[in-house]
Amino acid sequence: MIETDIIIIGAGPTGLFAVFEAGLLKLKCHLIDGLPQPGGQLTELYPKKPIFDIPGYPSVGASELIDNLMEQIKQFQPGFTLNEVAEQIEKLEDGTFIVTTNKGTKHHGKAVAIAGGLGSFEPRKPVLENLAFYEDKGVEYFVKNPEMFAGKKVVIAGGGDSALDWSIYLAELAAEVHLVHRRNEFRGALDSVEKVQVLKNQGKINLITPAEIVELKGADQLEAVVVEREGVKEEIVCDHFIPLFGLTPKLGPIANWGLEIEKNAIKVNNALDYQTNISGIYAIGDVNTYPGKLKLILCGFHEATLMCQSVYNTLNPGKKFVLKYTTVSGINGFDGSRKEAEKAVVKSID
Amino acid sequence: MIETDIIIIGAGPTGLFAVFEAGLLKLKCHLIDGLPQPGGQLTELYPKKPIFDIPGYPSVGASELIDNLMEQIKQFQPGFTLNEVAEQIEKLEDGTFIVTTNKGTKHHGKAVAIAGGLGSFEPRKPVLENLAFYEDKGVEYFVKNPEMFAGKKVVIAGGGDSALDWSIYLAELAAEVHLVHRRNEFRGALDSVEKVQVLKNQGKINLITPAEIVELKGADQLEAVVVEREGVKEEIVCDHFIPLFGLTPKLGPIANWGLEIEKNAIKVNNALDYQTNISGIYAIGDVNTYPGKLKLILCGFHEATLMCQSVYNTLNPGKKFVLKYTTVSGINGFDGSRKEAEKAVVKSID
Repeated sequence: MIETDIIIIGAGPTGLFAVFEAGLLKLKCHLIDGLPQPGGQLTELYPKKPIFDIPGYPSVGASELIDNLMEQIKQFQPGFTLNEVAEQIEKLEDGTFIVTTNKGTKHHGKAVAIAGGLGSFEPRKPVLENLAFYEDKGVEYFVKNPEMFAGKKVVIAGGGDSALDWSIYLAELAAEVHLVHRRNEFRGALDSVEKVQVLKNQGKINLITPAEIVELKGADQLEAVVVEREGVKEEIVCDHFIPLFGLTPKLGPIANWGLEIEKNAIKVNNALDYQTNISGIYAIGDVNTYPGKLKLILCGFHEATLMCQSVYNTLNPGKKFVLKYTTVSGINGFDGSRKEAEKAVVKSID
Repeated sequence: MIETDIIIIGAGPTGLFAVFEAGLLKLKCHLIDGLPQPGGQLTELYPKKPIFDIPGYPSVGASELIDNLMEQIKQFQPGFTLNEVAEQIEKLEDGTFIVTTNKGTKHHGKAVAIAGGLGSFEPRKPVLENLAFYEDKGVEYFVKNPEMFAGKKVVIAGGGDSALDWSIYLAELAAEVHLVHRRNEFRGALDSVEKVQVLKNQGKINLITPAEIVELKGADQLEAVVVEREGVKEEIVCDHFIPLFGLTPKLGPIANWGLEIEKNAIKVNNALDYQTNISGIYAIGDVNTYPGKLKLILCGFHEATLMCQSVYNTLNPGKKFVLKYTTVSGINGFDGSRKEAEKAVVKSID
């Protein structure tokens, strides 16, 4: 059982920043996310793209923002349960919560903050017979651990940035990389398209277009795929098939937790602390809704901050909360570190 | 008459960021501030200090944050009325507003956002007979335009960073700089204290401690000050006396605008759009109050954003507002500039 103060579901920018504000109040956080790395959409969907509306940043790369947030929160030593989806929640008699993931990992905390963004990202799957059978037996929707493809024969399908970028990456690592796309044209960063062209010319990527995977074969696990190109079918022997057709966000198991849902988002009390209809469960960032809600990262930052204050006040009834400015008080990390403004000296001049 | 869409009172970080969000909605802003430069407290009170709780910045200098915000909003060409305090407000029959400053400058806008922080900064004044008489006749509380002291004889009083820094700056520019402080010890950045020591040793700053100014002299304007040191009085002939004893924020004239005030702050509707009890007048950032309010810059950013949306909705009744992400849509400046993410190419691979 993982013990913490606040269980944060979702490790996107809002969930990450909550760790910082909680830390200022000496509250520990543990984050759960279905993706293999922190950052949510920003690292999974558009890591290289600039964001123009983060206050104080005329422009910041999505993955750069996440790197900065990770740096900002590191002294508060957040825990992470990645690659797992929060599936069940149980409120105990003492008002604390147990959150269990799809892999059975249990987390015990005093409050829960759902920072689930648009939901958990589920891969768009190709329509293929027996697809489910081969999942985790050769069919992969995410490249969670690139090393597992070393020396393997890999078929990637898709025409966007993910298909291009993973083909490039795995071309150096895998024994064979076949890239299958139903059009001749790819849609992605110019740089990526050009790199795939070079790797194809070098024989490191076998490009098959316009074509589609129409069949999966193998007894106990995937052994081959059948690709159809202009009416002609061909079998490709392979260890892995990675269809990269994009992700769609689904609210997922959270939708069944008894929370008030409106337009695929969780209703919260924006007049106070972004708490849901279940006391002790908050929803912050894109996953929540209230009158005037805007799905902007900067709004998630504010909501996370007020949520942390509310948790603090609930856990410390009667204790008067005194807000301290970080510029004045500095920051004490849970790891013993201290950040502070250079102190003024008091010194006489002779 | 200055014409704009949103009149923003206060050019601190919250007011500045409002320009950006308004710009995304094609609304123009004009800012009014009593200080000589944008940035509010950050540039006036602690320009060199780090802030640790701006989301995405593990640490950012206060003046650096303001520089970044100015860069972020420049394509939306905000107007500025600086060195003037918003004094009167009038709501016209058509629902628009006229805001007049203490110097008579008039601004006409469709909405007003008060982003006044802790209020307008008023200098702490020494208790001296005839002080008011010599104001603008030799007595200055701010160094608004350093050039006006070139070749002049200047007496500075105070023992903090402002007194140290302006003594250093003016030592090269003025004919004489006398620095008077009631203690021998100065309180400021080590670097500044050391520089004053060097300039004193070089005879460029005449240091008089522990001492106080006890009298101002002059017929039509300031001609001399009397300084008392350990019971001995001495007259110093001078053109300017600059007492730098710090600033205290005062809500000021805004307190008389008919707005609901609670604990020296303006009550707003945080359940919707941070509007005050007067429709069309909003209050954002440290100047407002509501249940759970935290006086943090990041909260001001959120409040500014929702305020802008509300103004847009009010000015465009019935028009369905569609939020566009800057990463996806880019930003069109009022100056014809355009910022956008690198476009994906659609390109075939041969």
